[in-house]
Amino acid sequence: MLTGELVLLKTSHRDKVREFIVKVSDDQLHTDFGIIELSSLADKVPGDTVVSHKGQEFTIQRPKMPDFFRHAKRTGAPMMPKDIGMIIAYTGLNKNDVVLDAGTGSGILTMYLGSIAKRVVTYEVRDDFVGVARKNVENAGLDNVELRCGDIVEEIKNLDEKFDVITLDTQNSKDVIPHVRNVLYPGGFLATYSPFFEQTKEIRDAIEAANFYEVMTFECSEREISFSSRGTRPSTSKVGHTGFITIARA
Amino acid sequence: MLTGELVLLKTSHRDKVREFIVKVSDDQLHTDFGIIELSSLADKVPGDTVVSHKGQEFTIQRPKMPDFFRHAKRTGAPMMPKDIGMIIAYTGLNKNDVVLDAGTGSGILTMYLGSIAKRVVTYEVRDDFVGVARKNVENAGLDNVELRCGDIVEEIKNLDEKFDVITLDTQNSKDVIPHVRNVLYPGGFLATYSPFFEQTKEIRDAIEAANFYEVMTFECSEREISFSSRGTRPSTSKVGHTGFITIARA
Amino acid sequence: MLTGELVLLKTSHRDKVREFIVKVSDDQLHTDFGIIELSSLADKVPGDTVVSHKGQEFTIQRPKMPDFFRHAKRTGAPMMPKDIGMIIAYTGLNKNDVVLDAGTGSGILTMYLGSIAKRVVTYEVRDDFVGVARKNVENAGLDNVELRCGDIVEEIKNLDEKFDVITLDTQNSKDVIPHVRNVLYPGGFLATYSPFFEQTKEIRDAIEAANFYEVMTFECSEREISFSSRGTRPSTSKVGHTGFITIARA
Amino acid sequence: MLTGELVLLKTSHRDKVREFIVKVSDDQLHTDFGIIELSSLADKVPGDTVVSHKGQEFTIQRPKMPDFFRHAKRTGAPMMPKDIGMIIAYTGLNKNDVVLDAGTGSGILTMYLGSIAKRVVTYEVRDDFVGVARKNVENAGLDNVELRCGDIVEEIKNLDEKFDVITLDTQNSKDVIPHVRNVLYPGGFLATYSPFFEQTKEIRDAIEAANFYEVMTFECSEREISFSSRGTRPSTSKVGHTGFITIARA
Repeated sequence: MLTGELVLLKTSHRDKVREFIVKVSDDQLHTDFGIIELSSLADKVPGDTVVSHKGQEFTIQRPKMPDFFRHAKRTGAPMMPKDIGMIIAYTGLNKNDVVLDAGTGSGILTMYLGSIAKRVVTYEVRDDFVGVARKNVENAGLDNVELRCGDIVEEIKNLDEKFDVITLDTQNSKDVIPHVRNVLYPGGFLATYSPFFEQTKEIRDAIEAANFYEVMTFECSEREISFSSRGTRPSTSKVGHTGFITIARA
Repeated sequence: MLTGELVLLKTSHRDKVREFIVKVSDDQLHTDFGIIELSSLADKVPGDTVVSHKGQEFTIQRPKMPDFFRHAKRTGAPMMPKDIGMIIAYTGLNKNDVVLDAGTGSGILTMYLGSIAKRVVTYEVRDDFVGVARKNVENAGLDNVELRCGDIVEEIKNLDEKFDVITLDTQNSKDVIPHVRNVLYPGGFLATYSPFFEQTKEIRDAIEAANFYEVMTFECSEREISFSSRGTRPSTSKVGHTGFITIARA
Repeated sequence: MLTGELVLLKTSHRDKVREFIVKVSDDQLHTDFGIIELSSLADKVPGDTVVSHKGQEFTIQRPKMPDFFRHAKRTGAPMMPKDIGMIIAYTGLNKNDVVLDAGTGSGILTMYLGSIAKRVVTYEVRDDFVGVARKNVENAGLDNVELRCGDIVEEIKNLDEKFDVITLDTQNSKDVIPHVRNVLYPGGFLATYSPFFEQTKEIRDAIEAANFYEVMTFECSEREISFSSRGTRPSTSKVGHTGFITIARA
Repeated sequence: MLTGELVLLKTSHRDKVREFIVKVSDDQLHTDFGIIELSSLADKVPGDTVVSHKGQEFTIQRPKMPDFFRHAKRTGAPMMPKDIGMIIAYTGLNKNDVVLDAGTGSGILTMYLGSIAKRVVTYEVRDDFVGVARKNVENAGLDNVELRCGDIVEEIKNLDEKFDVITLDTQNSKDVIPHVRNVLYPGGFLATYSPFFEQTKEIRDAIEAANFYEVMTFECSEREISFSSRGTRPSTSKVGHTGFITIARA
C-alpha cells in the first residue's frame, strides 16, 4: 500500500467482526485488541495480515464504497444504495463526467458520485451538514469533490461552468429546475429525488415548463430473497418507500 | 471536440428526432437530410450546431451511456439499467476498480462497467456474441475493455490476475463460484445475475460452500409514475421480473 | 339441476374450450356443435354430461363468479378480482350484509357483492350502463340486486334505509362521502376505489372531515409466478396499477 | 337486537377505544367502566347507546369480520385479510358454496369462509388448535362451520361429500391434491396457500399431475399509502411476503 492510501483493517473477536479504516502513515492505530503501527502497512498488499502488539491479527483490504457508506456519519436518512444505483445507471454516470449536486446532506450520494465522476461540485445550505459531509468525503479518500455552503436556488444563477449531470435532493428542487439548462450540457442529465407525490408533481411541472426531454419518474423497490433450510421466499420484512427519482435531459 | 472523440448529432424532422453517433474524423456522414463533413466538428463544443449540405441543422452532444445502450446491437434480452445500477451501487464500483465479467452477451453490462472502472476483462463463450459485444464496446468509445472468447468455468482457473469486482451473468455461474476467491481481492465483490429461483438457489449454495460473507440476494423493481392532466398514478403498464442479483464478498 | 337454475356447458373442439351459460328450461341451445335440449339438463347433476344432436359431448357445471366475470359484457375497464377481493375482506362482507354501491358501471363489483351479501342497492348515473349491468346481473342469476339509475351524490340524500357496507367507484366519491354516515350503520364500512392520487387525496380529505375511523388507503398488487421446465420465476409480464382502495368505518 | 345475537359494545376512555363483543342474554358484562346488563340490549338497534352502572356510555354495533379477526385468539401467524380476499375473489366464493378447508390453525380463514359460504367443513390435525379455532368460530357467531380433528391427507380419502371450493393451508398440501378431484365438483376451485417457493413448486407439480385447469400461482402485496400534512407517499414501512396462493380448477 502507498503512503496516504486508505486501508481497511478487519479482525474478528468472539465471532464479532471489527473494522477500522486507516491511512498508511507514521501514526498508530489504538484498538481494544492492541496497537498497530500504520507505517507497517506500507509493504503490504490486500489479503496480507498485520499483527497488533497484543498479537491480534488483522487482514488488510482496500475499503470500498459500501464500507464508506457503512462508516459514514449521518445527519438524517441517507439516500439508499438502490436509489443511488438508479441515478448512476439512468444518467450513465462515468469517469469523464463533471457533476453538480445539491443538497449534500451528509454527503452519501456525493461520495458515490465522487468515486465515479471526474469532479463533483456540491451545495448544501446548512453549515453543520457541510461539516459532516466534508468529513465523510475526506474519510472516503476523495479529492475531486468540492463542497460549498450555499442555497442552490441562488447559487445556480451565478455558476459559469457547465456540467454533464446535475443531481438534486432538496426540498425546493422545483425552484432550481428553471435554471438547470443554463449549466447543463445539451444531452446532459438532471436527476431529482423527492419523497412525496406532491413534491414530485411540482418537479414534473417545473421540468415540463423548462422543456426537457426523455423525462421519466419512477420508484425503485428492492426485495430481498431469503434462503434457509425451511425454504426460499421473498423476505417477510422489507424496506418500504424511500423516494421518487425523476430523470430529465437537457 | 477532439479528433477521434465521439459526437452525438441530433436533428428533428416532422416532430421525429433522429440521432447519429459519429467520430470526429476526415470522413463524411451521409444522412437522409444531407451530408455532414465530420472534420467540421473539430472546432465545436457540445451545444453548438452543424449544418448539412442540404441545410438541415444538427445539434452537437457528447453521447452518454443511455445513448449507447439505445444504439447497441443486441443478441438477446440485455440486462436492464435498473439491474446494472444495483450492481454498480452494491459493489461500490469506481474508477480504480479492475473488473472480471462473464458472460459478455451483447456487452451491455460490460459497457457500463467499462465507462466507470479502470479496466474490464470479459469472457463470452460464443464467438458471434463476442463480435457483437466488440462492436458495441468500440462504438461506445471504450478502450479499457478486453473481450475474450472462452468458457469462464475453465478460464478462471488459469487467470493470474486479481480483481476488485467480478460480475457473472452465465447459466453456469454456480460452477464458476468455487474459483472466484482465487482471483478476487479480499473485500472484493462478486455480483451474479440469474433469472430463475432454482438457478439462484444453486448460486447461493455455491457461495455458502465458498465461504463468502455479506451475502444478499434481491430483486429490483422499478415502477414508473405517470403524470397527466387526468391525474398522477403508478403506470398501468410495467416491466416485470428480469432477474435476481446476488452480492457476496470475498 | 332445477328449472331456472344456471348451468355451464363446457366442451372442447380441436383443443379449444367452448363454454355456454344457460338456464334449465324448455328452450334449445344452438351451437356450432349442434343443438341441446335444455330440458334434458333437469335430471343431471354437476359432472354429468349431455350430448348435442350432432353427438358432441358437453360437461355440466355450476357456473361460478369467475365464469360470470369472464362472460360479462363490459362498458369500460372493470374492477379486477384482486381489488374486489380486498374490498370483500376489509369490509368483512358476509351474507347478512345489505350493501349500497355506486357507480355500477358494467356491474362487475356489484355481481360479486350480490353473490355474497343479502341485498345490494346500486346506483349508476348513465342509463346505458344500467342496461349493461342489468344484463350481467341477470345472467349471473342474482335476484337480490336492485339497479337504480341516478346520481348517487343526490340520491344518497333521499335514502331512508341504512346499510352495512357502502362501496363507491365514482369520479365524485368525495361529494358522496359527507352523506355516507347518514345511511351507514355505526361500525359499518365505506370502501372507495380511485385510480389517481389526486382523487384519492380528496377522498381522504372528505373522510377526515366526516370523522370516520379505522381509515386506511392501500394498493394491491398481484404478481404471478411462472413455472416452466426452465425454472420458476415471477412473471416477466404483469398487470400494473389499477386503483387505490380506501377503507373507512362509521 | 335479538337474544343470542352478537353485539359489539364500544366506549372510549382517555382517548383510548375499548371494545367488547357480547351476546344478548340475561348475563352481565363486567368492565373497568362498570357493569352492563346484557338483557338491556334487547330493545336496542345499532347506533343506540347503553350506559353502565357507573355511567359510562357504550355505543352498540354489529360486530364484523374485521372485529372478529382482531379479537381472535391466535396459534401462529394467521392468514392475512389480503390473502383471504384473493382466495374469496378467485374462487368466486358465495353463499351457496359448500367448502372443504384444511388445516384450520386458529380458524381465521375458516371464519371468513363461514361468514360467506353455506357450510364449511374444516380439518386440523392438532387437537389444541381445533380448540382455539372452535372458540374463535363460536365467538364469531358462526353455526355453519364443522371443525374436525384429523389429518386431511387421510381424511379426504373417506369423504363421501362433494364441495364447491377446497382451501388448503397445510405443509403437505401436495399429498392432498391427488385426492381433491374426488371431492370437488367439476368447475369447483382448489386454493392453496404456501409460504415457500419449494413447497409451491411441489403443489404445482401435484396439480399438473392431477390434471386441473385454469391454474395460476400468485402473490398479493398490499401497499399502504400515507397521507400527512407533509405530503402523500407510499408507506415507508410495510408488510412483506406472506405466502403464495395457487388457484386451480377441477
